Amino acid sequence: MNIDDIRAADARLDGHVRRTPLLSSSFLDEIAGKRVIVKPECLQHTGSFKFRGAWNAVSKLSDVQRKQGVIAFSSGNHAQGVAMAAKAIGAPSVIVMPSDAPRQKIDNTRTLGGEVILYDRATEDRDKIGARLANDRKLTLIKPFDNPDVIAGQGTVGLEVAEQARAMGIADARVLVPCGGGGLTSGIALALEADAPDFRVHPVEPEGFDDVARSLVSGQIERNPRLSGSICDAIITPSPGELTFPILKRLCGPGLPVPDDDCLRTMTAAFNHLKIVVEPGGAVALAAALYHADQIDGDTVIVVVSGGNVDAPVFADALTRFP
Amino acid sequence: MNIDDIRAADARLDGHVRRTPLLSSSFLDEIAGKRVIVKPECLQHTGSFKFRGAWNAVSKLSDVQRKQGVIAFSSGNHAQGVAMAAKAIGAPSVIVMPSDAPRQKIDNTRTLGGEVILYDRATEDRDKIGARLANDRKLTLIKPFDNPDVIAGQGTVGLEVAEQARAMGIADARVLVPCGGGGLTSGIALALEADAPDFRVHPVEPEGFDDVARSLVSGQIERNPRLSGSICDAIITPSPGELTFPILKRLCGPGLPVPDDDCLRTMTAAFNHLKIVVEPGGAVALAAALYHADQIDGDTVIVVVSGGNVDAPVFADALTRFP
Repeated sequence: MNIDDIRAADARLDGHVRRTPLLSSSFLDEIAGKRVIVKPECLQHTGSFKFRGAWNAVSKLSDVQRKQGVIAFSSGNHAQGVAMAAKAIGAPSVIVMPSDAPRQKIDNTRTLGGEVILYDRATEDRDKIGARLANDRKLTLIKPFDNPDVIAGQGTVGLEVAEQARAMGIADARVLVPCGGGGLTSGIALALEADAPDFRVHPVEPEGFDDVARSLVSGQIERNPRLSGSICDAIITPSPGELTFPILKRLCGPGLPVPDDDCLRTMTAAFNHLKIVVEPGGAVALAAALYHADQIDGDTVIVVVSGGNVDAPVFADALTRFP
Repeated sequence: MNIDDIRAADARLDGHVRRTPLLSSSFLDEIAGKRVIVKPECLQHTGSFKFRGAWNAVSKLSDVQRKQGVIAFSSGNHAQGVAMAAKAIGAPSVIVMPSDAPRQKIDNTRTLGGEVILYDRATEDRDKIGARLANDRKLTLIKPFDNPDVIAGQGTVGLEVAEQARAMGIADARVLVPCGGGGLTSGIALALEADAPDFRVHPVEPEGFDDVARSLVSGQIERNPRLSGSICDAIITPSPGELTFPILKRLCGPGLPVPDDDCLRTMTAAFNHLKIVVEPGGAVALAAALYHADQIDGDTVIVVVSGGNVDAPVFADALTRFP
């Protein structure tokens, strides 16, 4: 797992993945009290960065694997990324989703070509269902973060950030990344280590679900005591991954926790000043930059907005509660 | 007024104006029944394409003009574009706005560096106020569309569309553009005539305010019977301009009218599938592509989303009424 894997992923992604621009607004700079640059991966295909890793993983399949198909477990962004990437290369995909996942995400995954298998969270074991399906139908499992090809694909965000920031004359910056299992954060950290070594990456998590921040402090993998109770569902995972954590530990600065309300407030700010749609979990890094800038060194912060798959009522509610 | 003016504007804009990407979604293709490509100028500085023309006009000022400053009349997007462009080159700007303009737009224009002069729509004459100010303070007037430098600046959207579409392998397309006074539409039409001659531009307007469509039919400048009563305020103008209309007449296909409700529906569709914030007037062209595709020839439609400056309550209302 090194920079060469990310560069190889970048070549595979070329022409298939959207190169998202860097956005900014003097209004956001004023709120933060420093320069804020935004990498809006909500504008990526399927509305999140997850398409990058999925595309890289799927495009490396052998002909036989491709014909047999892939499987993923996900209630959200990874599901859509894998379904769309698989469809694009002509591979069948099976997505195992909880039956109480938002209707829209289930429908979207189906429309993107995924065969959705629903299970009951309360009474059924997702891993058993998946293992049986994978075995019976010889499907290749695409893990959401603890997979070198997925990490390398997500790392292409970092290559783009380095190049685009350089073109803007930015020599030094803190880079804040929404962090669940750490696939995006570790990929970006590896890319920046090579292409922008003066940039320093900080993982950002919802308050109360700061397994990565605590793991960085203790030096070993820590777990979240619970897995629900935050609006930032997309980035709640039990713990950092076996593959991602060593990279995070070697390369990242301290993690930053952000309260849910700051994510909602940030959704309104991004609506007003960047004209982009941000989901709660995708907003944590921008929320840290806007409302907790005192915890961040330096004059320039680059933040990744990782996704925009939020239901309309949740979004309308954020606009109303935090006008 | 020709392609050389637009190329010169493009050189002036380089590094100052955001090069917006092309976006798409298989979900939108499915609604339209054809391929839909979106140029999201809502992601431009100040949230609309207006910054392009303003920058081009302002950057051509002489040193003396720059020192004396500029003036613009606008209740919205042109105001913000001129204020920000003027500030960036160190020119004072005076923006004459109606006192009942949305609070946020007035505040934004001020924050962007504009000196806002409010007038009462009912009792005061905007043009008289402006003429007196311009004369007393020797300000240069930046008209919103009937100005060659402004048209050339907006035309850079067309240069980008031609280049980006070519890179995607698109050889033939209809290009739909939200049309008020015709600055953006005529600029794009001129750019595409040179760089993508097989593309055909259609102006799109709110139903009941189709002065451009009627002017194209009659061959002479027609006027709107009224200037209020549509949610698409940003693109309601009395008539096409003296400079813009001859270009529109020579180069554009028939105009398309779109009902207000389709604009609101489109704002939800863009929220769900592109993750961008679109204002009602900025949505007309995408609305025509999605809900009136039977009136558009060909398999591929490129639409410009011209702005995203919509107040949160209006946006939340669109999401709620057209989920």
